[in-house]
Amino acid sequence: MKIGIFGAGTVGGGVIEIIEKQEKFLESQGLNIQIVQCCVRNPEKYKDKISEKIKLVENVNDILEDKSIDIIVELIGGTGVAKEIIFEAIRRGKHVVTANKAVIAENLPELEKLLAKNPSVCFAYEAAVGGGIPIIQTLQNELLADNINKISGIFNGTTNFILSKMEEEGLSYQEVLKEAQELGYAEADPVADVGGFDARAKLAILMKLSFGLTIDEKLIYTQGMERITDVDFTYAKEFGSTIKLIAFAESNSLGVMAYVSPVLLSNKNQLSKINGVTNAIMINSEFLEESVFIGKGAGRFPTANSIVSDILSIKKGLKNKAFPMSSKVVFEEGLSSQFYIRFQIKDGIGIIRRVGELCEKYGVSVHSISQLPIGNHKDLPFILTTEKTTRAAVEYLANDIKKLDFCNEKPFFMPIIN
Amino acid sequence: MKIGIFGAGTVGGGVIEIIEKQEKFLESQGLNIQIVQCCVRNPEKYKDKISEKIKLVENVNDILEDKSIDIIVELIGGTGVAKEIIFEAIRRGKHVVTANKAVIAENLPELEKLLAKNPSVCFAYEAAVGGGIPIIQTLQNELLADNINKISGIFNGTTNFILSKMEEEGLSYQEVLKEAQELGYAEADPVADVGGFDARAKLAILMKLSFGLTIDEKLIYTQGMERITDVDFTYAKEFGSTIKLIAFAESNSLGVMAYVSPVLLSNKNQLSKINGVTNAIMINSEFLEESVFIGKGAGRFPTANSIVSDILSIKKGLKNKAFPMSSKVVFEEGLSSQFYIRFQIKDGIGIIRRVGELCEKYGVSVHSISQLPIGNHKDLPFILTTEKTTRAAVEYLANDIKKLDFCNEKPFFMPIIN
Repeated sequence: MKIGIFGAGTVGGGVIEIIEKQEKFLESQGLNIQIVQCCVRNPEKYKDKISEKIKLVENVNDILEDKSIDIIVELIGGTGVAKEIIFEAIRRGKHVVTANKAVIAENLPELEKLLAKNPSVCFAYEAAVGGGIPIIQTLQNELLADNINKISGIFNGTTNFILSKMEEEGLSYQEVLKEAQELGYAEADPVADVGGFDARAKLAILMKLSFGLTIDEKLIYTQGMERITDVDFTYAKEFGSTIKLIAFAESNSLGVMAYVSPVLLSNKNQLSKINGVTNAIMINSEFLEESVFIGKGAGRFPTANSIVSDILSIKKGLKNKAFPMSSKVVFEEGLSSQFYIRFQIKDGIGIIRRVGELCEKYGVSVHSISQLPIGNHKDLPFILTTEKTTRAAVEYLANDIKKLDFCNEKPFFMPIIN
Repeated sequence: MKIGIFGAGTVGGGVIEIIEKQEKFLESQGLNIQIVQCCVRNPEKYKDKISEKIKLVENVNDILEDKSIDIIVELIGGTGVAKEIIFEAIRRGKHVVTANKAVIAENLPELEKLLAKNPSVCFAYEAAVGGGIPIIQTLQNELLADNINKISGIFNGTTNFILSKMEEEGLSYQEVLKEAQELGYAEADPVADVGGFDARAKLAILMKLSFGLTIDEKLIYTQGMERITDVDFTYAKEFGSTIKLIAFAESNSLGVMAYVSPVLLSNKNQLSKINGVTNAIMINSEFLEESVFIGKGAGRFPTANSIVSDILSIKKGLKNKAFPMSSKVVFEEGLSSQFYIRFQIKDGIGIIRRVGELCEKYGVSVHSISQLPIGNHKDLPFILTTEKTTRAAVEYLANDIKKLDFCNEKPFFMPIIN
């Protein structure tokens, strides 16, 4: 089986390294695979790094038009050229292995159609969600006949590293972000991670596999972690909880609702125990009840290993249908949950009454009110937790609270998971 | 695809129920499967419980000799008739799906030979280890090209339930065992679970898949949990640890060493966070670093779901080679670790000196000595933790300590995992 690979960076280099290192073992398994071409922007740069057996090329068509190549591996990232490469390879009947969650999530309907037209093509993307965690295979196969009712997870190592560090060391978001950037855990422009968009693309893919739902990922309510402060961690501790950036989707009688947001997460939940850059995916289903998969969500070798295992599956003739589920279930844009609401106030008389009146106005039932003696009396945090209600109601409530004279800023709110 | 099923008990009944319930969905996936016969000891008993479409038979040959049956599902358990059924089905070219860890672990070399002679037969056993956790598939496929260096896990829900409850409620082993038996979590004769033998069979299977090592499972050092007391939990807490019955295998420069034993497990280890009947499997490997898989390890639907997913994989033509790995790695019967040693003493003068002399005699380096003021001075627990040493040295040491006049009983010891 001959392979053409696009990209020789962190993951691409890792794939080449694993296949070289394990060559003899793979041959002993009857799994002879061979990387014949590698397409990079600047071949000169890689000349000394990559084995002579692999031809370095600059033009994507050198690989796409090579009829001897059975599988292409797309690892250049982004949604421009990468999309063109993936789609053109499928049209030419080549199997595709990719780690590109963005291309998949953005082009799901089109991709499904193209794959239906080319039924002999395997499209494999184990590395796109959860890096080294074999969640795609598990959903395509082990959980296929089960009924999944909930997905929740820590899908982004960068944000989990930042939140864990904020909690452990009492540092601010900005301080830890800077450290994460210096360590190479966060990008110079961190918005895809800290804004929740990376997690959103992964969630959209898992929603397709779990519920058969093809949606525009932009419809998923997505809130970043930028407003989390040490005050929130102090209250989280009071509530026997922690704070994690969670991607969440749940099937209920109305359809499927989903969000990506920081969440006040009970310490009883397995996901609360996942710290640092580790990822974790929790699946609740009718037959298996609760399953949790924990592993490295990114990095050279974890991601490369998933790419290699996809290649081997195709070589063995064992690759599952890429998106086996399709269903008529509806996507619920509105989400309901218990909520944690924090606003900063100038201390005074009558605050609880006025907040209470607004809660009543929007039909929001109050679960608890807390105000620890932290901060100064001109800027005190005030925490309200609600019973189950809709995000829309909390949004209205927050906007009205903001207008009250004692309120210093727009309330911050996030869902609660027990 | 026609299926004959042996056993209609907890798991067998669950398999029939899932396949009936999901029939339409599976048909929509092009996965038409049909259970045509079910072999039970007393067909009368099941007449009203099982759909008329399934023929109830008493004689195993009714299924084995039926040429229209493609797959047999063995769920009667035990190692007598079950083994005969599995082996005869393979000889007749039928695919086999089973949850029977004991038959696999006890007959691994014979089974491998038979499968080599019948290469068209799929032998699938996802349900044999970890119930609903897809660990077999993961090792056969996603981790095939990775180099695994350690397996550790909670492979037995019964013992984990008992240990969790002892820790939480300060109850004795005997008290919790009785409760577990009343709840149906423990058998009337609990030795397979509490003695570690169930976990040992599962470990032997995972050692084959991870290291390619075919061994007699009886060579694995196996210690049950019967001697764990509330005193051990008190000390575990002092050490920032808990106690879990762990199945462990590690590859080092000499070969692979393995054991099943209660373990003093650091609270930093993910496995320390697994409570109740839940199972968890941790794999440390070169490329994926640390992966943890958590789920229901037993029970009607989790186990049945794994059986159904195996059937569907065979139907899709996607089943991996049963035991892809074989290697010349050596099994190390001797194991080395840090150890926790507890002995009960009559308080007196010169105890530390005499214990110290014995440690020196056997070359055991002492890491810590603790003696909390618990118990009366005629029966005080005395805890010694060691640096890394061999189990043999600790065994000699324990035997010598037992002979000292102040010592009330043979010391209890267990490995330490950080």
